Amino acid sequence: MQYRLYYWPGIQGRGEFVRLALEEAGADYVDVARESGPGSGVRAMLRLLARKDRPPFAPPFLQAGRLLIGQTANILLFLGPRHALAPRSETGRLWVHQLQLTIADIVVEAHDTHHPLAVGLYYEQQKRQAKRRAADFRTARLPKYLGYFERVLEGRPPGQPYLTGARLTYADLSLFQLLAGLHYAFPRAMSRLRRRYRRLARLAHSVAQRPRIAAYLASARRIPFNEDGIFRYYPELDAR
Amino acid sequence: MQYRLYYWPGIQGRGEFVRLALEEAGADYVDVARESGPGSGVRAMLRLLARKDRPPFAPPFLQAGRLLIGQTANILLFLGPRHALAPRSETGRLWVHQLQLTIADIVVEAHDTHHPLAVGLYYEQQKRQAKRRAADFRTARLPKYLGYFERVLEGRPPGQPYLTGARLTYADLSLFQLLAGLHYAFPRAMSRLRRRYRRLARLAHSVAQRPRIAAYLASARRIPFNEDGIFRYYPELDAR
Repeated sequence: MQYRLYYWPGIQGRGEFVRLALEEAGADYVDVARESGPGSGVRAMLRLLARKDRPPFAPPFLQAGRLLIGQTANILLFLGPRHALAPRSETGRLWVHQLQLTIADIVVEAHDTHHPLAVGLYYEQQKRQAKRRAADFRTARLPKYLGYFERVLEGRPPGQPYLTGARLTYADLSLFQLLAGLHYAFPRAMSRLRRRYRRLARLAHSVAQRPRIAAYLASARRIPFNEDGIFRYYPELDAR
Repeated sequence: MQYRLYYWPGIQGRGEFVRLALEEAGADYVDVARESGPGSGVRAMLRLLARKDRPPFAPPFLQAGRLLIGQTANILLFLGPRHALAPRSETGRLWVHQLQLTIADIVVEAHDTHHPLAVGLYYEQQKRQAKRRAADFRTARLPKYLGYFERVLEGRPPGQPYLTGARLTYADLSLFQLLAGLHYAFPRAMSRLRRRYRRLARLAHSVAQRPRIAAYLASARRIPFNEDGIFRYYPELDAR
């Protein structure tokens, strides 16, 4: 079965967490809004958003046969067991989902550093407030979240690369993406924190080395980070 | 088995979404941080937050035997099938979880109306920015979310009270709680929107009438809304 992924073209955004899972799984999928032709493009996405029967609230959403699944973490909850990207036990699956939801929480906060007042306003219209929110994010929230994930990695049996141990899950892929985004948006702040979070750095390295992920990152399918996405590089929001 | 719920005492907060599910289920549970004595109170909660083995990032979390589950939506994902608060089919469960994650999204935005710059600062230190963020929330975000849920209700077979039809799920309980919180925090804005979202109002009414929920709401277990929680009534943040 071919999956159909719907997400805004031109940005990694939340769609990227799904793309990484599909790529690692070697799944057959179309990135619908980036294609042209009948049944493709942004218009096809907007049509599904407007439907009455179980509409998604926002992209990304994934079509799998007759099923239409919205919310990033929910899509990964669906894909995980189908593509060996989640543990087999219920306990393990709940734990991986819990980690994913915590990643989703910091993603919202990273976004809000450049949009603290309103998503409908331009960054330039809330730049002053963005500086204050970004300072709080860099000095309080970022260390709190990264410290948490480092502690989770510390709690594993030694010598294992991933969050749950030897086997990769979708939460590892998402954590890699989160770290990549944070390095893009806050290069100075992140480079200072690097020594404190060595296990996180190793996990990100392990994910990037996986053959399918490495091939994906080197391909044209990987949209570069840019200032329309969640993680934006505005030097004035980074550490001095 | 007796569940142990861990959440900050004194506020409804995110714990309330879990409490409502436990109450509707008639489940045996202890609200640990509100109890005193050995193994209880906030200290017992902080001890579990500090543990190395699969620590939760933040309250609420639920202990079910040896399992410790964090993240509100994840706790509900666990409780749903155990207490007939989620559909039996995978398709149905994913849909209810998708709705729950969308409710979680607006809950973050409702919180940020009074804390747009930093959770570590007092409201009074960000009051000016809070007014701007709250105005955007009331006029843009709130109608977008409520319009979405109203549309979901419109898409059901007619005459059915709940999000998925005749049977209550945990997402209905959470939607009830969201609406109660919004009415508390933004009474003028919500009373103006009431006519546009009649199906939502009926759903909230249906939930409130359920015997176990009605008994809970009338009990001392239901903490009143207050200005330490997610939904706070600051008249200057409401519509004129």
